[in-house]
Amino acid sequence: MMNDLNPDDLGRRAEAMLEELAAISAEQDRLVRLFLSPEHRRAADLVAQWMREIGLEVFEDEIGNVRGRVGKPPYLVLGSHIDTVIDAGRYDGPLGVVAPILAVDTLRRMKHMPSIGLELVAFGDEEGSRFHSTLPSSGALAGHFDPRHLTICDPGGVSFADALKAYGKDPDRISDGAILPGDAAGYVEVHIEQGPVLEVEDQPLGVVTAIIGQTRLQMTVTGVAGHAGTVPMNLRRDALAGAAEMILLAEQIASDFASDRMVATVGKIEARPGAMNIIPAAVRFTLDLRTESDAARNTAIERFEREAKAIADRRGLGFAADAIHRIATTPADRALQAQLAEAVEAVGAKAVSLPSGAGHDGLMMSRLCPIAMLFVRCKAGVSHNPAEYASPHDMGLAIAALVRFIEQFQPAAKR
Amino acid sequence: MMNDLNPDDLGRRAEAMLEELAAISAEQDRLVRLFLSPEHRRAADLVAQWMREIGLEVFEDEIGNVRGRVGKPPYLVLGSHIDTVIDAGRYDGPLGVVAPILAVDTLRRMKHMPSIGLELVAFGDEEGSRFHSTLPSSGALAGHFDPRHLTICDPGGVSFADALKAYGKDPDRISDGAILPGDAAGYVEVHIEQGPVLEVEDQPLGVVTAIIGQTRLQMTVTGVAGHAGTVPMNLRRDALAGAAEMILLAEQIASDFASDRMVATVGKIEARPGAMNIIPAAVRFTLDLRTESDAARNTAIERFEREAKAIADRRGLGFAADAIHRIATTPADRALQAQLAEAVEAVGAKAVSLPSGAGHDGLMMSRLCPIAMLFVRCKAGVSHNPAEYASPHDMGLAIAALVRFIEQFQPAAKR
Repeated sequence: MMNDLNPDDLGRRAEAMLEELAAISAEQDRLVRLFLSPEHRRAADLVAQWMREIGLEVFEDEIGNVRGRVGKPPYLVLGSHIDTVIDAGRYDGPLGVVAPILAVDTLRRMKHMPSIGLELVAFGDEEGSRFHSTLPSSGALAGHFDPRHLTICDPGGVSFADALKAYGKDPDRISDGAILPGDAAGYVEVHIEQGPVLEVEDQPLGVVTAIIGQTRLQMTVTGVAGHAGTVPMNLRRDALAGAAEMILLAEQIASDFASDRMVATVGKIEARPGAMNIIPAAVRFTLDLRTESDAARNTAIERFEREAKAIADRRGLGFAADAIHRIATTPADRALQAQLAEAVEAVGAKAVSLPSGAGHDGLMMSRLCPIAMLFVRCKAGVSHNPAEYASPHDMGLAIAALVRFIEQFQPAAKR
Repeated sequence: MMNDLNPDDLGRRAEAMLEELAAISAEQDRLVRLFLSPEHRRAADLVAQWMREIGLEVFEDEIGNVRGRVGKPPYLVLGSHIDTVIDAGRYDGPLGVVAPILAVDTLRRMKHMPSIGLELVAFGDEEGSRFHSTLPSSGALAGHFDPRHLTICDPGGVSFADALKAYGKDPDRISDGAILPGDAAGYVEVHIEQGPVLEVEDQPLGVVTAIIGQTRLQMTVTGVAGHAGTVPMNLRRDALAGAAEMILLAEQIASDFASDRMVATVGKIEARPGAMNIIPAAVRFTLDLRTESDAARNTAIERFEREAKAIADRRGLGFAADAIHRIATTPADRALQAQLAEAVEAVGAKAVSLPSGAGHDGLMMSRLCPIAMLFVRCKAGVSHNPAEYASPHDMGLAIAALVRFIEQFQPAAKR
């Protein structure tokens, strides 16, 4: 039955669809498609049209997820997100929306539709670019929407709730759209790797072992402002000099945990008052620390807090670290991993096992049902950037493997 | 003749005038008085009224300096500025405007007016808080106004030239207000120290030896953006981690030049794209480095640039350092220093010799005539901050010394 599956043809079709989606942007010169924006509306309509064209029964829930169904529950849920970061690439998210559409289309043409029900979904907010939200869309689908999201405001002062209403949705009915426990047989997402492992191993596809956990801290370092020309170095309490030491500490700790493949990132920093000629009185910066082992991560965070405090004490600075986000590692379901690996091998590729360093909607979906992810090699590990790239051939192989996976899929109860 | 000079009375009068000026602010809860603002207008009118009350002939030039004259040229010029930083204290600037007004008033009452002409001035822009300008007001008075200032825009997009016009001034006639070379016999400014030296030495007054030079650099560090969860530490080109090393390098260099009393400040930093979960691709930060010896400063800057480049090279980062401001050390005139020291001792204080770590209008005035400065002890070295404080007693002593200085002043030609 694999004869009908030409990866290059499937890849070219995927590339054309991704190009069409990438043209839907709030800005002319870069890709920006935020949750509940006019561009979200247009992208959602396009995806809904594609879903209808392959015979799905399409609807939108009250958080703006586009959902297309065929068959009866329990559903094998397949999807990803259509929102983007600011100045995004075209693959992160949309590939996992387009791939199941092409896979189901192929199955229909081959008359190999499975007996199990399928639900395809395009989540509206995975990146959190607009509201600094945490997976509200998959949270809603999984029945775990956190209503505190509703009061978050975007940089323009528009609340999540008001943006939903302006999008034509009813915030009070978000929970109506949740899939009932037992009605989801599994969740599988196709996504670019966003890292360099598959490229280094020269393999197109990977099966995800776990979505690694992360801790995000918000640090506040407080010193004393002073005139840049008149306060001697030995009398200074320079918050930025202290923060600089802490940034290097975070880098050192991650390097010390190299065998855990730990990564630590300080992505945001703000120094106040922020004048060239004033010693910084306060610095705020973030730390994002990830690794598969929850124990190693907790040990590293404790070390960071302890040693950063010591830096602050030595410099006469105040120091506070607030955990704003803690997610334990979410393992992928072993049976689903095995089925995905079998499907990858059936299309002639090697199934590389690797963890996901990025967070994904699977984190939320794992609360509802077993999850798994199929990774596609991307160029230089780059994502969240216009240079993001996956080849049509690799994408086509992923879609062919997904076809095989859906054909062979058996829900856990029947396995 | 000193019998009529009671420092405490003079200090109380100064304090009352400073309080009146401090009430003129754009904001209710903090002192903000920007160049060419409605608050500048009100402060200028108040100063003009005070000058008229002591019998000066008052006018405003085309850059908004308030000027009051008595006698004929050459003038001994005495003054400071009435603009403030954002969230300022009440002494930095206004003390040097109020002190000569009270000194001249005292001389009149004592019928001790000197034979030499006097010009009192209140500069409109010394802090550069609105336009990031560089001493345009004293530059204009000294005949060295840089016309490139006219095109600078404030954060609201209003150009320096348009702001001048809205203030009722003619930008084309700024140079008409310059004092002619030969018409200025000297420039003397009373100012709070803005540093801790006088407090540490337990002395109220200091005579400035030099306004120390400074170099300001704008650094750009460029790396490669990447996903915070998926790019291994050893493959990162993290612009912020590199910048953190450079910030500590600047601190180390200043400490290594401790015998030169060198100070180095990184006051502004910006990391892009500035998201918690993205490795910073670019960081911009400033360096402000000051010390009295021009040679030591240049050596330190060369070392910073060389070693920062080495940090960037080791990390695979791009590095550029642009000098945006270079000012050589401006020595105070030795004869004026001696006359000021004599006046300080005549009122019973010790004349502490010390450099000024901050820039002042004297930098520009030194292009026109000999300059000197009288420093007044301030609390904890704090300035540019609401906690700024100088005691009425210390201010009164400074005014008494200024009275004595003006009485005894002889222009260089006659010395």
